Order: sequence, then C-alpha cells, then structure tokens
Amino acid sequence: MAVGLTEPTQLWSVAGVRLAAVAAGIRYRDRADLLLIELAEGSSCAAVFTQNAFCAAPVQVAKQHLRVASPRYLLINAGNANAGTGEPGLAAAIASCHALASVAGVEPQSVLPFSTGVIGELLPVDRIAAALPAAHAALAEDQWLAAMRAIMTTDTVGKGFSERVVLSGGEVCITGIAKGSGMICPNMATMLAYIATDAQIAPQSLKAMLERCNAQSFNAISVDGDTSTNDACVLMATGRSGVTLQTPEDAVRFEAAMQRVCLALAQAIVRDGEGANKFVTVQVEGGRDEAEARQVAYTIAHSPLVKTALFASDPNWGRILAAVGRAGLVDLDVDQVAIWLDEVQIVADGGRAPAYTEAQGAAVMAQDEILIRVLLGGRGTAKASIYTCDFSYDYVRINAEYRS
Amino acid sequence: MAVGLTEPTQLWSVAGVRLAAVAAGIRYRDRADLLLIELAEGSSCAAVFTQNAFCAAPVQVAKQHLRVASPRYLLINAGNANAGTGEPGLAAAIASCHALASVAGVEPQSVLPFSTGVIGELLPVDRIAAALPAAHAALAEDQWLAAMRAIMTTDTVGKGFSERVVLSGGEVCITGIAKGSGMICPNMATMLAYIATDAQIAPQSLKAMLERCNAQSFNAISVDGDTSTNDACVLMATGRSGVTLQTPEDAVRFEAAMQRVCLALAQAIVRDGEGANKFVTVQVEGGRDEAEARQVAYTIAHSPLVKTALFASDPNWGRILAAVGRAGLVDLDVDQVAIWLDEVQIVADGGRAPAYTEAQGAAVMAQDEILIRVLLGGRGTAKASIYTCDFSYDYVRINAEYRS
Repeated sequence: MAVGLTEPTQLWSVAGVRLAAVAAGIRYRDRADLLLIELAEGSSCAAVFTQNAFCAAPVQVAKQHLRVASPRYLLINAGNANAGTGEPGLAAAIASCHALASVAGVEPQSVLPFSTGVIGELLPVDRIAAALPAAHAALAEDQWLAAMRAIMTTDTVGKGFSERVVLSGGEVCITGIAKGSGMICPNMATMLAYIATDAQIAPQSLKAMLERCNAQSFNAISVDGDTSTNDACVLMATGRSGVTLQTPEDAVRFEAAMQRVCLALAQAIVRDGEGANKFVTVQVEGGRDEAEARQVAYTIAHSPLVKTALFASDPNWGRILAAVGRAGLVDLDVDQVAIWLDEVQIVADGGRAPAYTEAQGAAVMAQDEILIRVLLGGRGTAKASIYTCDFSYDYVRINAEYRS
Repeated sequence: MAVGLTEPTQLWSVAGVRLAAVAAGIRYRDRADLLLIELAEGSSCAAVFTQNAFCAAPVQVAKQHLRVASPRYLLINAGNANAGTGEPGLAAAIASCHALASVAGVEPQSVLPFSTGVIGELLPVDRIAAALPAAHAALAEDQWLAAMRAIMTTDTVGKGFSERVVLSGGEVCITGIAKGSGMICPNMATMLAYIATDAQIAPQSLKAMLERCNAQSFNAISVDGDTSTNDACVLMATGRSGVTLQTPEDAVRFEAAMQRVCLALAQAIVRDGEGANKFVTVQVEGGRDEAEARQVAYTIAHSPLVKTALFASDPNWGRILAAVGRAGLVDLDVDQVAIWLDEVQIVADGGRAPAYTEAQGAAVMAQDEILIRVLLGGRGTAKASIYTCDFSYDYVRINAEYRS
C-alpha cells in the first residue's frame, strides 16, 4: 500500500506531445502495456540513463539514437526488460524502432526505445509491431493518464504530476509520469520517468536542467540500493507555447517548478516502494561537502537494520548511530554527532540525548512519514537529503515470490 | 534454524587458558551471561576490533589496555553492549576492569573488557562486580563449552571449533569460540571470537597471523552489511605446550590449522545468520586485484534482491548479473562475464548461457548450500570469496520485533 500517495485524476496536456497506450499482449492480459509518445517536430529532448555496466539493449539503442538524431517518438513497453539478452536483444530493440519508423514515416534514429519488465527474455517484436498502427492512429494529447497506467509493473498506484507556471512571456505547463516501485532491479521495478513541457528550451539548457533536477530527485531515492539495468528519465520541451525563459527570474521559476515535478515523481516511487509502510526522509547536515553528506544519508537509508526498525516503528537510535559510524567519513568526531527524529532529539554529543525519552521516539516512529535528521558537527555546512522507505515482510514476499 | 551447523559437544582444553561462565543477571535470567578467561603469565595476545567510528566503550578500553600491558584476563558480558553510552559507559567499562583486577590481584590494564547486547543502556557494573569472586574461583581449563554458551545472544547454536596439529616439536592444539548471528549491529548480534593455542608464538607473529586469517574468514562474511560497534576477534598463545613454530613447514601447517578454525567459526556465524535458510559462497575470479574481486563479491552478497531470490530458491540470474554491473568496476567488459551456480553455467559472454535451462538452475537453488561463482574475464587472476546467507521473512521478524 503506497504511503500518502493517491493516483492523479487529471494531468495537463502538453501542446506538441501526443500519446497512445495500447494492449500489445507482451506479458499482461487485458491491459495496455505499450506506450507511444510523439514529440512535435522541433522539440528539444534530454535523457539520463542507468549507471549499471549491464545496461539493457533499449538503453544502448536509445543512447546511440540520441547522439545522432532529434527524437520524434518514444516507444515504451512494460512486461519485458529486454535486458541480459545479448545480440538478439539488441536486434529486437532496433527492429522495434524500425517498425515504428515505417508506420510513422520517420528515420529509425528518431525513435527512442524503453523497456521494463522481466530480464533475460527476448522482446516479442512481432507483437509490438502488430500493435503499432493502431497506436499511431490513436495518438492524442489528452492521453497522459492512460500513458501513466500503461508503463506500470509492480506499481500499485499510477504516478503523475502537473504544474503550471506563469513566466514573463505567458503560462507554460509541465506534466510528468513515472513508474517504479523502488530503484530495485532488474525485474519489474525499473524506474522510468517522462516529463514534458510546452516551454521553449534549447537542448543544451534542457540537458543541464535535467542533470540538476535529477540529482535532487530521482538520484536521491533508495528502496533497496539496487540499480536497475533499464532506468531512464527523459525531459522533453516542445516549445509549442511560444514562451521562452526570457529572464533569469523566468529560469529560476521554471526550474523550481520542474524540480517540484521531478521530486514529486521520485518521492511517489519511494511511497510506492515494494512493501513500503513508511516514507522516510534522511537529511544529513554539517558535511564537508555534499558528497559526504549523501554518503552518510545513503548508508542510513540502505541499512537493513534501520529499515526493519522503521517497519517496527522502533525508535532504535543505536542503529542510526552505528550507520553514521560505518559510513566511512575521514576524521569523523563522533562526539559531535546529533540526531533528531522529526523534532525529537535522540542523540546529542554522540550519545543518547539526556532529555530524550523512549515515549517521544516511539510517537514519531508511529507516524507514516518520518524525518531522520543527522548533524555531523564541526565539519562544514554541506547537506543532502535522501528519500527511502522501510523494509517489511512484504518486501521479502514481493521479491521472493515474483517469478515463482 | 542454522544451516548445516550443529553445536560442538567437545572442545579441546588449551593448557594455560582457564575459563569460567557465571550468571550475573545482566539481562538474561537462568543462564550464564558473564565469561571470564584467564591467560597464563607470559602468554601472547593479539586482537582486531570493529572499524565502526562509533566503537563501544569496552572496545576503546580494550584497545588502550592492549597498548600498555600484556593481557591476563578477558571479561566478556552478554546482554548489554555498553555502546552509545558516552562518558558514563567508558567509566563503567573501566570500573569492571578494576573490579576484576582487585579480585584477581593484577593490574587493571591487564584486563580486556568485551560487551555484546543492547546498545544505549548503561552496563550494570555492580552486578558484574558481585559475580566476579565466584567466577574467579570457578576458573578451569575444561570450561570451553560453557564459555561458548555464555556469550550467545540471538545465536541459536553455540559456535566452537578445535584442531590439533602435529609440528616438528610436538602436538599443539587450537580451540576457538565465537558468537554472532551476522555482522549485524548494534544489537544482540555483535561478532565476538576468542581463539587460543598452547603453541609458543611471539606477539608480533601472532598479530600478523591474526590479520591474515581474519581477512579470509571474519572479514569475508556478511549477513546484512551492517558493522557492529563491538566486533572483536582475539588470538591467544600460551606457549604451555613448549612447542614453537621451528621450521617454515611448521609455520605453514600451523597457520593452515588456524585458518581452518577461523573460517569454521566465521562460516558458523553466517550459517546461524538471522533468519538464514541457505549458506551461500560467492566466489569471484578474474579480478585485477583481490580488492575488486571482493568488491564484486560483496555487492552480490549484500544485494537484497539476490538474497530474497536465494530465499525463494529462484535461479534469478539477472539479479546476480545486475549486481556485478553496479559494483563499480572500471572498464568492466560485460561481454566477458560468466556466472555459475555450483557447476551449472547460467551466464556466458554477459548473457544467458545458451545451454542453460531454468530446471538446472532451480535444482541448485533448492539446495541448502550454494556456490555462486563469477568470472570477470579478461582482467586478471585475482579472486575472493565471501560467505553469506539468504534474506527471509524471519530476518525482518527478528530485527523488527527485537526490543518490542
């Protein structure tokens, strides 16, 4: 059950983006599992992909196509990751791009393929090709909700978010969808995100904005520390509003809205984390630089002991303290470390805070949403936030029973 | 239930080592929870401790005492870790050494304290001090089995192992005990190991031997990747057999036996890992150096997805492949990676092995003991083995329900 997350009932259309969700029978029955996204000519597009050395065939093809052409179509299937499939998998990804290119009358290089689902099984290109004419014919701007649902796998709730921003040249909108029940790989839980705006933004600016937004959102979440072979996040700007980021204020305002959309989608993935009962923000302050603050935050967020204590609503501050201690910081003065659960200080000067009572900690841990705040002390002023969830019986069940 | 592990019914006495296990009522009722180990004068002693920056009070005191004196007594309690207890905790650890020193008539610096149990609660020094006279009076060489049981916490099976080795100067023996249900911290599952021999070995040689043996045994296991604040491993040599390591062959033979004892104890900790149903060896070959082979092996051994697949007996080779891919190796040629489950090749040339069938993989995964072997290919000849277990409902239960 997703924590504090409900499926959106409305997402703004983005002029210049048309979508179609169809049932291709790739793995699921009786649901759409193939999504086609069309970008108007002249749109900008930027993408970031998984850092896993074993990146799936569609990731390899999408990276290559992005280098040589401007994307006009995104082709996304759920139910099959086309990963660990070697040369035949690569050929299948390429063939699906060719099939769409011939239906749409574009170059194959202007198609970006994406897959999520079971690893190690060959992508059924025939079924995809057979579904493409109907998908192409069904393309429409108001299909964001259907698109959001077509890319779901182990997700229990569809994830979408829209913002409207007034800039000096007029109003623009941003709409994004995402899927993923955690950063967990390599099965049904790959993270995919597609975010579009009708603002007019040059490709280089869009790419830089994506990298900044991604670092604070999709790259700041963890369900179990595993990284998928298929993760991708794509940012698209059609320019069809005719509005540009004219002034520095426009740029700041637009990027803040983009950041909100990315963060809402990223947090939605954690809120729908496999077996999640708690949504937890780990905020580390007082680092020498952001990297070490992230390092401590991730060590806490990845600790199975911290995560099972969260599941049990147990204010087991010793487990948090020990995670800080093993995060590998050089010259950490443990006697300066302080830790809070929300507003309750549980650790002061590296030990149990004098005024702390178990009842105070238990009250915070009983909440659905918890802030773990760590002050390293005496090192610097850098900080970082990581979003994670607890570790429950259901996590084990979902990951043990899947495929069986 | 421990995997392929039964409690020893006999452990060889080691001349020059006397032990006493008594009930001090530290946390448990109706069981011994305090262990006293006496080393004959002139013994050598070496120790390694946790790398966690938050090391517990007894670890700080034991390190300091080791620097200034030859240990004569080890004082070990179960039920309270005396960690995260600040200055009062440090005072309590020192006070317990003083109490024993006065009973035994030695300098306080010749006492090494060790604690395992709940974090953040002050050590009840009074109860320990009250139990010391009876413990000191009860010291005897044949108390290894009782000693083994006195240090247990969440352990379900006592862990002890003995070897006898014939050297050119005569026969010597090695006996060791350990506790721990994983490297998990900071609760009841700290790893403690005490290994003694009647061979005569200089302190520097003993320290070097401990470091080599530790690297391949206690430092090569993982239950959940957490590192305790209290971990310690102590090697003691009384010399009371009068036998030295005269020849290079003696040295090799003795160290091999010591290595077997350390490995058996370390593996016993994994076999009794919290909620463990499988004992898994992850062996990585073909690394540029041992460090990168260990890095890949640990990434596999720590992956919650691999561990839940092991629990489910699911030959989910994609999860292993993805863990190799995200281990962070520079210039990894994924097309050369090969993976075996026992003798069954599941991955060849970075993809599913052509001859592999799911039935073959399922047969191996159904076993209690599994070897995951990874060949990196084209990099070098270094290798490393890590021992781990699966991730089950019971792991979550044990760590979620403990303290509640």
